[in-house]
Amino acid sequence: MAIEEAKTGRAEGGIPIGAALFAADGRLLGRGHNRRVQDNDASMHAETSAFRNAGRQRSYRGTTMVTTLSPCWYCSGLVRQFGISNVLIGEATTFHGGHDWLAEHGVGVTVVEDQELVELMTTFISERPELWYEDIGQD
Amino acid sequence: MAIEEAKTGRAEGGIPIGAALFAADGRLLGRGHNRRVQDNDASMHAETSAFRNAGRQRSYRGTTMVTTLSPCWYCSGLVRQFGISNVLIGEATTFHGGHDWLAEHGVGVTVVEDQELVELMTTFISERPELWYEDIGQD
Repeated sequence: MAIEEAKTGRAEGGIPIGAALFAADGRLLGRGHNRRVQDNDASMHAETSAFRNAGRQRSYRGTTMVTTLSPCWYCSGLVRQFGISNVLIGEATTFHGGHDWLAEHGVGVTVVEDQELVELMTTFISERPELWYEDIGQD
Repeated sequence: MAIEEAKTGRAEGGIPIGAALFAADGRLLGRGHNRRVQDNDASMHAETSAFRNAGRQRSYRGTTMVTTLSPCWYCSGLVRQFGISNVLIGEATTFHGGHDWLAEHGVGVTVVEDQELVELMTTFISERPELWYEDIGQD
């Protein structure tokens, strides 16, 4: 689902990162993709979009955030604050965010290093570097 | 402005936390308040709301995030990821978030400990504890 979301974002002319949040029992709570371009919204990274689309939840205990790319500090902070239990990451080759910090603080972290996703982001960054660096706040 | 935003949030029946983001030259970029109740949106804390309302920015160098309450990990991660230079915090008595971590990573952090804001949050937490703990992801 996260890969589908990333590809939808790419097809919309946006940043190709997708995410999905699952309950402990495997039920989908919310899915989404980066919406910086589509909505002119700097606050909607893939993970925050999936989190928002999950609606208000009383507890995130046992949940898993699946994301195509290593979560940046903003999205890592989201995971830590709300007590999301696990993060499944498509790849951390093109960007290395805060997932080591999450693991240190008890979050279950798995990095797949999916080569299709590495190529998706590598191509995107080479084609749209200014957009990519804007999205991660690098001058 | 952040205090005005917090009071607007309270008047709307929401969580009374406000924020405003300023450019290096003092110009307002965006202001906002927590919108969990108003929009049923778990992703819109005061700081993320101000950040969103600031629109897309190429750089946050020199900017200051003013917030009525110590930023949680989610909002602290936002500050770190986007290179917001300074955080001015109304109070850190009723909630102690990630501002020490931000200071360790080079962000200029000032805590005012405004007693009016301490009372605003103390009253809110005592009246709506379930809403408050939902907003910070505590079971």
